[in-house]
Amino acid sequence: MITVLSGGVGAARLLRALRAEARPSELRAVVNVGDDLVLHGLTICPDLDTILYTLAGLNNDQTGWGLAGESWRVMDELEAIGGESWFRLGDRDLATHLYRSQRMADGATKTAVSAELTSALGVDVALLPVTDDPVSTVFETALGRLSFQEYFVRHHHEVAVSRVEVLGAASARATPSALSAIDDARRVVLAPSNPIISIDPILQIPGVRDAVRRRRDDVVAVSPIVGGAALKGPADRLLFELGHDVSCVGVADFYGDIVGTWVIDEVDAGHERALRQRGYEVRVTTTIMGRGANDAALASAVLS
Amino acid sequence: MITVLSGGVGAARLLRALRAEARPSELRAVVNVGDDLVLHGLTICPDLDTILYTLAGLNNDQTGWGLAGESWRVMDELEAIGGESWFRLGDRDLATHLYRSQRMADGATKTAVSAELTSALGVDVALLPVTDDPVSTVFETALGRLSFQEYFVRHHHEVAVSRVEVLGAASARATPSALSAIDDARRVVLAPSNPIISIDPILQIPGVRDAVRRRRDDVVAVSPIVGGAALKGPADRLLFELGHDVSCVGVADFYGDIVGTWVIDEVDAGHERALRQRGYEVRVTTTIMGRGANDAALASAVLS
Repeated sequence: MITVLSGGVGAARLLRALRAEARPSELRAVVNVGDDLVLHGLTICPDLDTILYTLAGLNNDQTGWGLAGESWRVMDELEAIGGESWFRLGDRDLATHLYRSQRMADGATKTAVSAELTSALGVDVALLPVTDDPVSTVFETALGRLSFQEYFVRHHHEVAVSRVEVLGAASARATPSALSAIDDARRVVLAPSNPIISIDPILQIPGVRDAVRRRRDDVVAVSPIVGGAALKGPADRLLFELGHDVSCVGVADFYGDIVGTWVIDEVDAGHERALRQRGYEVRVTTTIMGRGANDAALASAVLS
Repeated sequence: MITVLSGGVGAARLLRALRAEARPSELRAVVNVGDDLVLHGLTICPDLDTILYTLAGLNNDQTGWGLAGESWRVMDELEAIGGESWFRLGDRDLATHLYRSQRMADGATKTAVSAELTSALGVDVALLPVTDDPVSTVFETALGRLSFQEYFVRHHHEVAVSRVEVLGAASARATPSALSAIDDARRVVLAPSNPIISIDPILQIPGVRDAVRRRRDDVVAVSPIVGGAALKGPADRLLFELGHDVSCVGVADFYGDIVGTWVIDEVDAGHERALRQRGYEVRVTTTIMGRGANDAALASAVLS
């Protein structure tokens, strides 16, 4: 089994690349829920849904979020009557949120609902929320404290951050399925997701970081920083604002002793020595996904 | 001021007819909330919304529910992933439910949200939920206890009912605006809505029946039973199953001493004497709404 600690887009693409090289039934994702939110009464899990849609082949590869062929009738009407429409929920996407919200009102866990949704969409990779307890990542910013989606969507992550906190993490319980997915995998992968706001909120759930550390020799991390910049999103900006080096080495130092092998991009080959000096194995390959040959090379570097 | 105790479709049509004859700002509806529900995490108020859409000119007059030009993308997708889709929520309609659910999560009352929605849709009739507290009408049936919408929508009101109960009614508080709308109106109207499941759940909120009784001389009721049958819905069947005469006289006996004047249809002129013997004033006119001349005649009978 291969277990991938996952945020949203970057993880979804890595999982898609790995699925092409491994047996899908071998793959499991342990997914961040720190950016989950309740909006309009609906429970929304952006990272779980991004992976779900990507692996179901429904995602919009142009925008990097949402669904291909999406329509926006509900949001347009909501906007017309003066409702909050800054967090755009497409009509097709809303069906997922209605489904999840109803099932959770029925008493189902997020884990159970994820299994139902992957089954309904024919996705054969298990998507495991790291916890079924409510946690929420919040940002101390120049505009005051912001929720994840206020920071990320409403303000387009264009506001200075002084601190990131995962509310509820200390008392949340990792699910048994997430913990055993780490314990019994032949490889544990840290996806090239945002280290601070996607992967760290997974590691902060009690027991998870220790579980990953115990597997250190089999832990492979793919750097989300390539040539000093994030491919997508505010990982570079957040690393800088929170005092980390904006490089694969900075990310390695941020994760510390839980990683055995770093997979870095060819443009970062100059960092290989610094990583080896810190005791990591290093594989250098292309890490820019989206083209078949690149995806296969990256998957091979992660799995070999 | 004219205050109309209101269920859904029949009340919406009466309000539309009255608005054409009175000043809209004179009109207020005190609306049943016993069939409100939470579904998919969304707070849905079918009677309030039916009136809202009808008065905004957005309703579907063909089906008698929902919106003209409605689309069904979300429901179709929800059905495709195996979600509960027996209660059909159109895309445009969903915007209303998202709006209300978000505002109520923000702490707004149902009354406040109704005012916001009427304002957003340009409706100048005040729609006043009888209470902001949760109440729910349930049915003891041959299939066991059913919620309102399970009875009404899921089973198409085609199951025998032995008892109707409004859970929460005894401890609910009528809103001050609903009570004062009854106290200070020059006319209080009982809409031709279902007596048992639309009007009675309003009267059961403590203080409401007494408030209406105090205005008895100014209370005009429009019979929902015409020629021994309901124009729409299960009023006739429910009256029969619960032991009432299926006629305007049976409805009059059900309401008892809170009505001063009955407005009955021409086909029921033969019941005039029985109603007068019970001490009611009676006006005989056409009560079938939907054509301009009929609407004007009915409005005139109610207002004169």
